[in-house]
Amino acid sequence: MEQASLATKTSSNVIRCRAAVAWTTNAPLSIEEVEVDPPKAGEVRVKIIASGICGTDNHTLEGKMKTPFPVILGHEGAGVVESVGPGVTTVKPGDKVLMFPLPECRECFYCLYPKGNFCEKENILSPTGLMLDGTSRFTCRGKKIYNIMGTSTFTEYTVVHEIAVAKIEAAAPMDTVCIMSCAVPTGFGAVFNTAQVTPGSSCVVFGLGGIGSAIVMACKASGACRIIGVDINEEKFPRARALGVTDCLNPNKLKKPVQEVVKEMTGVGVDFAFEAIGLIETMVAALKSCNRSYGVCVIMGVAPTGSQLSFDPLVLLPGRTLKSSVLGGYKTRDDIPKLVTDYVQKKINIDPLITHRLPFPKINEGFRLLQEGKCIRCVLSMRP
Amino acid sequence: MEQASLATKTSSNVIRCRAAVAWTTNAPLSIEEVEVDPPKAGEVRVKIIASGICGTDNHTLEGKMKTPFPVILGHEGAGVVESVGPGVTTVKPGDKVLMFPLPECRECFYCLYPKGNFCEKENILSPTGLMLDGTSRFTCRGKKIYNIMGTSTFTEYTVVHEIAVAKIEAAAPMDTVCIMSCAVPTGFGAVFNTAQVTPGSSCVVFGLGGIGSAIVMACKASGACRIIGVDINEEKFPRARALGVTDCLNPNKLKKPVQEVVKEMTGVGVDFAFEAIGLIETMVAALKSCNRSYGVCVIMGVAPTGSQLSFDPLVLLPGRTLKSSVLGGYKTRDDIPKLVTDYVQKKINIDPLITHRLPFPKINEGFRLLQEGKCIRCVLSMRP
Repeated sequence: MEQASLATKTSSNVIRCRAAVAWTTNAPLSIEEVEVDPPKAGEVRVKIIASGICGTDNHTLEGKMKTPFPVILGHEGAGVVESVGPGVTTVKPGDKVLMFPLPECRECFYCLYPKGNFCEKENILSPTGLMLDGTSRFTCRGKKIYNIMGTSTFTEYTVVHEIAVAKIEAAAPMDTVCIMSCAVPTGFGAVFNTAQVTPGSSCVVFGLGGIGSAIVMACKASGACRIIGVDINEEKFPRARALGVTDCLNPNKLKKPVQEVVKEMTGVGVDFAFEAIGLIETMVAALKSCNRSYGVCVIMGVAPTGSQLSFDPLVLLPGRTLKSSVLGGYKTRDDIPKLVTDYVQKKINIDPLITHRLPFPKINEGFRLLQEGKCIRCVLSMRP
Repeated sequence: MEQASLATKTSSNVIRCRAAVAWTTNAPLSIEEVEVDPPKAGEVRVKIIASGICGTDNHTLEGKMKTPFPVILGHEGAGVVESVGPGVTTVKPGDKVLMFPLPECRECFYCLYPKGNFCEKENILSPTGLMLDGTSRFTCRGKKIYNIMGTSTFTEYTVVHEIAVAKIEAAAPMDTVCIMSCAVPTGFGAVFNTAQVTPGSSCVVFGLGGIGSAIVMACKASGACRIIGVDINEEKFPRARALGVTDCLNPNKLKKPVQEVVKEMTGVGVDFAFEAIGLIETMVAALKSCNRSYGVCVIMGVAPTGSQLSFDPLVLLPGRTLKSSVLGGYKTRDDIPKLVTDYVQKKINIDPLITHRLPFPKINEGFRLLQEGKCIRCVLSMRP
């Protein structure tokens, strides 16, 4: 009997399958048998094929993000629709889909407005860990298990809202395009939509993990002529250079603040600065690294819950711009499937972002690779 | 003998004339006889015709800005060139000119770059109160008197760098266009250049003084359909409505934070928020007043020296933008004379911004009008 067939349906249409449950913070995930309820109205149950491990999953596991436990983490998944609840019209069983940590309801003011993407039905700013009706679809050992940002992909089956699912084309390789649920649009959108990096410009990227590496690729694609990469883990430097970084800086080995070194290297500071770590200290360093008269600083890292970003407003006064975005400002359902098609048609390449692949049961090894900075993205495959 | 002829030249070409000296913070200005040295190389001595009193002058007098005393305040002046130092080529004696608190050297990286205006030779971020050679041109009772941001216009004669002076057209009414040295470009540029307000948009303006009123006029000119004005001095509301404000809010009379009221009034927060006061509290309120998905907040007020702007970065995350600029991002010598011409040709109207006029010796009455919020701009005339 294959491993995958561990998933079984009960008479009430509950699916029993494997999931990685985070019972508490700062402990290994536990592979458990969970029950996944059938989708209610407007919901979709998805068989997960592959899922990336994102820094935000790790931050949550480390207790830095306010979200309820026990939880099934994972928000960067690709899968196939298993069943749909009443009223679902945009996907059907058998469709290949991506699931997004930010929905696009196509009804709220924000969705209908051409700019921006922060759908009113988001579950990011004050995460409930529950579906929009206030209930959970996961049970394990008789206990309710919470979701993360309405997704939860470290499981063989999950239930998500239709507004957070999009059909992608059948030719898409699921164990690669899964990272288009988060890392790729977040990094690409930070560059193409939020900063709008210009040809010939200079950039600095704080953090050379998954998001940072996607940012580097997009800066290069935008024609940036200098891309400074900043990380305290020098093991990341060779891969970063291969993606387009022209200069690598390790702040721990500098004799002065990194922003001063960036200013010296570029004369006046960079045109565009990106923060892809989620630390207040690096957010302020990024802001001060961009040139004072027209520099743009884009913060993509998510700081620990309750953090305060603090700086002298004179830093902004001469003309700097400070921005941020979620999922790179892409309208998730409208825009991200097009990125998938671009990948399938070889218009963009995201392969270098995936440095490691592991079978799902080895998920804790994947988290360790991330914590130790050994991978850009590690993708978990749910296939046996 | 006319009052103006108090100004006399000495044999060494020093001019003796009247100036309002701020000997110390939080005290009335003292009209004194001062000596104004001749212009050195690259400098211009200007006979001041008219000068506006700006909030920043008052903040400096109140000790909120780090600048050396004793000082001759004023940075919003119009005048006529009296003499020029060696090497000056862009203005000559007799030219009508404006003086700017931000120079445009046309040589530094910032000046040569198409975007931004924060010339490297600025004297704003760490004001020395001195000319670029480190000396002063003002003496009073044997003591050295400092300048403010390289200008100092509360005097019958001043010396400024050529890079901070621009010829304007002869037909310009000096006692009106003097406010184009600061208030008008700061307010207009905040809207046209920095925020780029769009037709049909909603705006909120914190602070309905000189800069705030200019912002209101520019928002209206940009086609904003709703302009919410915020001030704790309700005496400013009728004038603000006349300029284009559609709704007035006094935060002291609200039962909840002003940003929540703005959000309720607009459904999702405004498209564009402007802070024209210079308080950390109102900067944060402005940021939170703009809608989270694509709102743009522009800070034009200058906070007291050493202030820290502090907020949860989650406020930015959904897509907000925080920006700032000095003199509205205009390249001062290139752009501001064109604004003067636009005024002379009646393409723009700045008359409503000047609500009071006083002769120069009544300068302390002008400061009182500003402190009590009774004027938008009070212009001092140096003519007898």
